[in-house]
Amino acid sequence: MTDIKIPPDHPRAESLRIREKLIAYYSEGMVAVAGLMAHGRGETFDYLLGEKTTKSALKAINAAAVMLLTAKKPVISVNGNTAALVAEEIVKLAHVTNAKIEVNLFYRSLERELVIKKRLKKAGAHEVLGVGENALAKIPELSSERRRVDPNGILVADVVLVPLEDGDRTEALVKMGKKVVAIDLNPLSRTAQNATITIVDNVVRAMPRLVETVEKLKCQGKSELKEVLLNFDNRKNLTEIIALIKESLSELAEKGETLSFGESAI
Amino acid sequence: MTDIKIPPDHPRAESLRIREKLIAYYSEGMVAVAGLMAHGRGETFDYLLGEKTTKSALKAINAAAVMLLTAKKPVISVNGNTAALVAEEIVKLAHVTNAKIEVNLFYRSLERELVIKKRLKKAGAHEVLGVGENALAKIPELSSERRRVDPNGILVADVVLVPLEDGDRTEALVKMGKKVVAIDLNPLSRTAQNATITIVDNVVRAMPRLVETVEKLKCQGKSELKEVLLNFDNRKNLTEIIALIKESLSELAEKGETLSFGESAI
Repeated sequence: MTDIKIPPDHPRAESLRIREKLIAYYSEGMVAVAGLMAHGRGETFDYLLGEKTTKSALKAINAAAVMLLTAKKPVISVNGNTAALVAEEIVKLAHVTNAKIEVNLFYRSLERELVIKKRLKKAGAHEVLGVGENALAKIPELSSERRRVDPNGILVADVVLVPLEDGDRTEALVKMGKKVVAIDLNPLSRTAQNATITIVDNVVRAMPRLVETVEKLKCQGKSELKEVLLNFDNRKNLTEIIALIKESLSELAEKGETLSFGESAI
Repeated sequence: MTDIKIPPDHPRAESLRIREKLIAYYSEGMVAVAGLMAHGRGETFDYLLGEKTTKSALKAINAAAVMLLTAKKPVISVNGNTAALVAEEIVKLAHVTNAKIEVNLFYRSLERELVIKKRLKKAGAHEVLGVGENALAKIPELSSERRRVDPNGILVADVVLVPLEDGDRTEALVKMGKKVVAIDLNPLSRTAQNATITIVDNVVRAMPRLVETVEKLKCQGKSELKEVLLNFDNRKNLTEIIALIKESLSELAEKGETLSFGESAI
């Protein structure tokens, strides 16, 4: 299945390469089978957004960069899909923001945790929290395996970056008084709706942008940074993105263009 | 992963059950790994359509029932996801419309073909075309494994039912002068846009409805049936569905409701 050659000039080459990457890491036990279906759900939203980082996403990335830069104890939460797709960018972001990296999985198994840890270490991570016995603290109000967190990481964090998840953890973290930055292609998910800052973008595009933006803003004064956060309205931003999807649907329908997912047939 | 119990009162129970079913058949080698991601893409569209059979879908089902009933040599094309989700309904539909059943896969392997054939036989199919050496004819203009068809089935069919696929086969079949009925949750896919009749609905809801409708219309006169087809406009129907998705997005956004996919976290 993964030995099909993707021609470099294929109009959907990038999307197909991401898919092949996920499948390869699925075979290694890093990505959960549910993660493959979740990726498919994201693909539809990405397509409806034109598969590009929108202006609204850029605003959210800017605000997120400031929030991470000004955090006291930022933590980047990592699951299977994120480790598979953007391990290098996670390590870079942790480095430039002084953030910790913690593995947090819905389908927890020591085997998966270790595969993810290995990939992050290989990408240059000094420390990976939340693996094995270290995930001994619990987030209140959560019943899934997601509740297990590291007492040196998410439990005591003031800002948590949560890329690619759908569920009630963001709400629980916000109730604990934490600020949550989410990366989620579905602007209507519970994660997207409950996060403090929601970046509605493909994690593959958003993460390098986030690293870049942090590096650019690092030298700015505190008051300028505060300004960015004061001017950002997450609710308004999400509404803008939903309007964009509607426009995109109208345009595609009017032009008679097809929204095709390429060689994805089953 | 599949041993997570789904509580029967879970708001997303039906969707989660379908997911678990696909995963189980994936483990048996029936569903391709790409089929899991394709299912995810469909889930997003289904959610945006309110996870119900819309009036526009009912119109298309009605027209499709007539087209199958009045066909001379109808064939139902079956892939991994379809066999996993609606094998029983495929057999029922073949029975009430005198249609042949043919396996047609993008990721062809004799092993997958045989697993699918076995499932269809168990569901009551008398004959399953397109397996192994029997798929020796070729659809012109197609380069994928989808081009291989049975000389007694799709090659000589006048009407082909194509549930759940995304790609260029529908266009090729239409160019060969065949009528294509597609079931596809993405109203903008090449399949949806090129089919003669497109049912934009979840195959799990559409297939039993289609069987029911055929049974109901079976006793009607030929002129009444012709009327149904004359009154059906596929292009208009697809436009209506795109409008419905836009409305649904507006409503969800206005109500501040979340479009959550349940325990799908990764």
